[in-house]
Order: sequence, then C-alpha cells, then structure tokens
Amino acid sequence: MRRKVKGLININPLQTGGILTEEARKALLEWCDGYSICDFCKGRLEEIENPPIKRFVEEELPNFVNADIVRITHGAREGMFAIMHAICEKGSYVIVDANAHYSTYLAAERCGVEIAKTGNSGYPEYKIIESDYANLIEELKKKGKKVSLLVLTYPDGNYGNLPSVEKVVKIAREYDLPVLLNCAYSVGRMPIDMKKLGVDFLVASGHKSMAACGPIGFIAMRREFANVIAKKSKYFPRKEVEFLGCTVRGAPLITLMASFSHVKERVKHWDEQVEKARWFSREMEKLGIKQLGEKPHSHDLMQFESEELFKISQKHKRRGYFLYHELKKRGIWGIKPGLTKRFKLSTYAASKEELKIVIDAFKDILQAYKA
Amino acid sequence: MRRKVKGLININPLQTGGILTEEARKALLEWCDGYSICDFCKGRLEEIENPPIKRFVEEELPNFVNADIVRITHGAREGMFAIMHAICEKGSYVIVDANAHYSTYLAAERCGVEIAKTGNSGYPEYKIIESDYANLIEELKKKGKKVSLLVLTYPDGNYGNLPSVEKVVKIAREYDLPVLLNCAYSVGRMPIDMKKLGVDFLVASGHKSMAACGPIGFIAMRREFANVIAKKSKYFPRKEVEFLGCTVRGAPLITLMASFSHVKERVKHWDEQVEKARWFSREMEKLGIKQLGEKPHSHDLMQFESEELFKISQKHKRRGYFLYHELKKRGIWGIKPGLTKRFKLSTYAASKEELKIVIDAFKDILQAYKA
Repeated sequence: MRRKVKGLININPLQTGGILTEEARKALLEWCDGYSICDFCKGRLEEIENPPIKRFVEEELPNFVNADIVRITHGAREGMFAIMHAICEKGSYVIVDANAHYSTYLAAERCGVEIAKTGNSGYPEYKIIESDYANLIEELKKKGKKVSLLVLTYPDGNYGNLPSVEKVVKIAREYDLPVLLNCAYSVGRMPIDMKKLGVDFLVASGHKSMAACGPIGFIAMRREFANVIAKKSKYFPRKEVEFLGCTVRGAPLITLMASFSHVKERVKHWDEQVEKARWFSREMEKLGIKQLGEKPHSHDLMQFESEELFKISQKHKRRGYFLYHELKKRGIWGIKPGLTKRFKLSTYAASKEELKIVIDAFKDILQAYKA
Repeated sequence: MRRKVKGLININPLQTGGILTEEARKALLEWCDGYSICDFCKGRLEEIENPPIKRFVEEELPNFVNADIVRITHGAREGMFAIMHAICEKGSYVIVDANAHYSTYLAAERCGVEIAKTGNSGYPEYKIIESDYANLIEELKKKGKKVSLLVLTYPDGNYGNLPSVEKVVKIAREYDLPVLLNCAYSVGRMPIDMKKLGVDFLVASGHKSMAACGPIGFIAMRREFANVIAKKSKYFPRKEVEFLGCTVRGAPLITLMASFSHVKERVKHWDEQVEKARWFSREMEKLGIKQLGEKPHSHDLMQFESEELFKISQKHKRRGYFLYHELKKRGIWGIKPGLTKRFKLSTYAASKEELKIVIDAFKDILQAYKA
C-alpha cells in the first residue's frame, strides 16, 4: 500500500491539477473519520456550519465561478448525470462536442438519453465545429426527435482545446435549449465566469483541477433550474432527490475546502501557465515532436505526436512501453504506458526548471536511439 | 478547520463504526492526491492492480460477505439507487420495511419508483411485521400495480432492530421478487453471509461500518444480476453504465482497503459487542431510562426513552439542549443536540470502561436535577 511514483516530475494530465495542498493534507487527517464532517449536521450536508460547508457552497463556490446556485457532487460525471437525469426526457437527445469525455456518454446512457455528436476539424488541430450544434438540432428536428441539452467540453481531455462557448450559447439561445459546460479541466485552473460565458450549467472536478482528493466535484447552475435540479423529496421535505439527500459526506469535501484559498489564488496566474505550456510546446517541436490540438495552445493539457519515437518503439525490446520506462528512469511520471506515437501530458504542476528536465529527457531518448 | 470533538467518548451511531484505523490514516496520506490511485489504471477502477483494488473487489469483498459479484459505490444509498435504477421499472413499487432509512425513499423517488411500506409492532419494540410484505404484494396486485423489489433494512438506524431476513426471503421466493438488504449498519460490524441469508443484493457502507472515510460503500449481488447492474456501455465496452465508468476514484477507497484486515477481524468478535450492548442497556434501565427496540437487543445501536430527562429539559434554561451539553461537559459525544425524551446511541466504539463513564454521567445528571 505504498505509492510508487512519489517524488517524480508529474506530467500526468489526470493528476497535475489534483495534487493536494499542505492545508488539505492537514485537514484530511483532522476530518478523515467516517461521518466526522457531520458532527454538527442539522439535516443536510450543505447546511453544515462547522466545518463551514454552508458558506463554502452558498457563497464561496458561487462567487468563484459567478453562479447562482452550487451543489456538491461526487465528481464532474456525477454532476452531468444529475443534470441530465433531472432535465432530459428519456429518449430525447443530448448534443455533445466531438471531443467530449467518455463519461458524458455514460451519463446520457444511464438516463436513457440518446447522443448526437458534432464534428471537429480533424488532424492536426481537432477543433470543435461549433456550427454543428445548429446542424444537428435541425437534423434531429426533421426526424421528429427532441433535443434536451447541449454539452460542451471546456477544454477537452484529449487535446486541451478551448472551443468557442459564445458560438454554442448563441445557437442554444436561438433554439431555447440549455447549455452544460464540462469544466473538469478548467474550473480551479483558469478563471471561469459562468454568467459571462452565458451557460446554464457547469460541472467541475475537485480531484482533476481543484487540489482535492477524489472523488468530488460540483454543479453550478442558473437560479431558474434550481427547482428541478435541487428538487425536494415528497417524503422528506429538507432532502434533495437528485443528491439522495447528501452527496460527499466525507474527506474529499474537506480537502476541496482546505485547498480553496490556494486554488482561488492560482487561478489568477493562469496566464503564466499558458505561457509555460506554449514555451514547452515550442521546445518539443524543436525536437520534431509535433503538438496536436489548437495552436497557439491555451491550456496545459496537450497531445503530442512523434513518428520518430514510434519508429524506435517498433525495434525496442520493450516495444511501445519503452518511452514510459525511459522517462520514468529519468524521474518523469505521467506518459501513459504503451504510447509513443501520440501521447498526452500536462505542464501544469511542473516548474519551468522541471519541464526543462522533461525536454532534455526527450532529447536524450531521441539521441540515444537515433538510427 | 479543526475538529472540535476529538478525544471524547464517541457514542454517535453514525460515527462509531467509521473511525479510521492507523493503517487507513497512513494509506490516506500516501494516496490522497487527486487520481493518485489511478497511477496504473488500465481502463476501469476496479481492475487496478496497484494499489490492489482488483483483488479487493473481485476476491476479498465477495469472500467477506459470501457474494458472487461486488461493485464499489459512493455509499449504501448510491448502491440502492444503482440497483433500483437498473432493475425497477418507472412507476413500479418497491416495498420497504417500516424502519427503512430515509435514503431508501430518496433512491426510489429519484428513479420514479413508488414506495409501499410495511408496518411495525409500534411502541416499545417497533419490530418489523415481515408478513406485511406478502400483504402489500397482494394488495398492490389487486390494484394492478407492479412490485419490482423488496427492501429490508438490517438493522435499521433508529432502533437497531434485526428483522427476520428468512421470513422476507421466503415471501420473495413465493412471488419471485428480488430482495435487497440494506446492511449499512451490519457489514463491517457483524458477520453477514449473503448466500446463507438468501438475498439477491446487499448494500454496505464504508463510512458507517467499515472504518473508512466517507463516502464509500459497495453493492454485493448474485451473479444472475451482474448483466443488469454491471451492464457495459454501448459506446465504451469496458465501462459500466450504472457506475458511470468508475465510482470512488480516490481516498475513501484507499481507507476501506487499508482498514479491511482489521474489519475482518473485528467482525469475529461481534458476540462481545452484543454482550456489551445488552449490559449497557440493563445499566441504563436501572436508571429508569428505557431501551426501545428489540429486547434482548442484538446490536450496538439503540434508542432510549426517558420521561425524567424530558421533564428536566422543560425547566432547564438550555431546554432540550441540556442533555447534549451535560454529556459533552463530561467528555461524552454523540447524543443529538435537542433530544432528551428519546435519543439514539451506539456502544460500538467505546470500551466497557468508557461506557461506565457514560452510565455514571447519566446517573449524575439525573441526580443533579432531581426534583
């Protein structure tokens, strides 16, 4: 039960935004016993005042993303499910972007809701074609199908692309449809203003981007949806049906709260993160490793492509696993084992000095196996 | 962000089974970073081999409760929801015991499933009338309603009563209906053998009874239901729809695993817990504080009644809150603030020596305010 990858330079896109702060580690030990955060519960998790969950959910999180109403969920996917479950009729369609996370599909599938998917621009940028939302709405309308929700992933977890929310919202308003923004990789990293963006819902992830231990996330919504999403039980008038009364009754919530002041601060320095990602991308390209996705890039999550590394893998005794092992040997963690031709990474948690080590490692590996 | 009730004798029924072991506290710090348990994920949480989640879910937990198949959930309530959502048609009826936890109602309500409720024997024992399951099935049948599931709470969280699973299962078999046993207060405390009990499903709670930090639990099921409950996605063939791919991707799972060898051991000493609870009950009754629920009692969770304490509260300046404060002053934590006439407690975590302090405290309080 020891973690094997401690102390390495972490460029795993799943992990770089979820590393706990010292405050969160301390709070975790303080509140880790089962139901300890419910010491002073008066009937609903999000009304607990000690620890200050109520203020966190009713004031701090809504202010952070400029939302009317926030509810804690077990994660972004559980948030998407709760929203779809509450507002999408069975058999209706949700339109999702071509780069949507797999859990978007599962959330819809669990509700008995069908999915239509936009296109993207394909290799090498894979940009979402926002106008496809309108095309698909028209297409489905002709077939007599009902569209109940538009989902946009902002950014996606494959390329780190940030599509135009404005364009999608404009289409949504024309057809009077709600928009759900999946901000698992943005809220907690970059500034997100829900009202400025004009979306109806967003979901966020604590373990992905808010320095919290998993699983936790939240839904933010416009006030007009609160009656549906946060509908009270007909049996127990203080309990909310979609959340089965209370959701994250434990440790992940404590870490989310304890890390929050750090997270609020780090979001202000997002421009530095973008600058660092762009610099890293340029350095990689100098080695002949091509960055896919939007260029110039505006997020720390990036996908790279290398014919050269792929060629090496075909001759190497470890085959596709060689890159993973070569990097790990050099103290670098986070490239998915087995991948060489295309791989994702995130520059978020590593300093520029550490990223220099990463770049040198790639250079070194390419050199070492040069034909 | 400091917990205020550390070091007190804990008799809070929600908390006594969820206090972390030293092993769990250590594991928590090792694996608390977001998505750290996914270091070596190959596509699904429950197939991860390091930390050994796969073995835990596929071997250890099934052996522990003698089940065919186990799946990790965010808690017992989320387990009940997943089962109902997968097998109960909208508009059908779930029959629940009169002492069922509120979240049973919310799970059904979230699925659009109706609820019929058995009776209990009323004051003072509140024993479930198991034959009511048959009566209700007949009644609903006459009305043309479909029954899709029987739920039994074992034990319930109000009185700690352990109804006859055998009787309910016998009725279920007659009508060919599945039975779900809510074991939030039993699995992890007392020996539970699913096959011996003959139920189709059970749900368990890590934070309530398995020395884990919340929220976490599991579903155990008979093999024949695996295709429905653990149905694979039509979009992503490795991902399971009801679990949105992966459920507890983080810290609570690590604590459940780290505490497990301790939990397996403590379950073997359940008879000592029952003996301690009965002794405590007798001592309380000597003070004129009546134990409600089954007698002799077979669980550490008990409800007590005291006219005398209620009378004191009516004259006390703190009114109903006096008992809570008087106990806390004496180092005792866990009676719900505001209650004096009837209150619940659990003898699970406290030693006999500590419980003697509790009994003396009640004696002392009754003496101090004697008319």
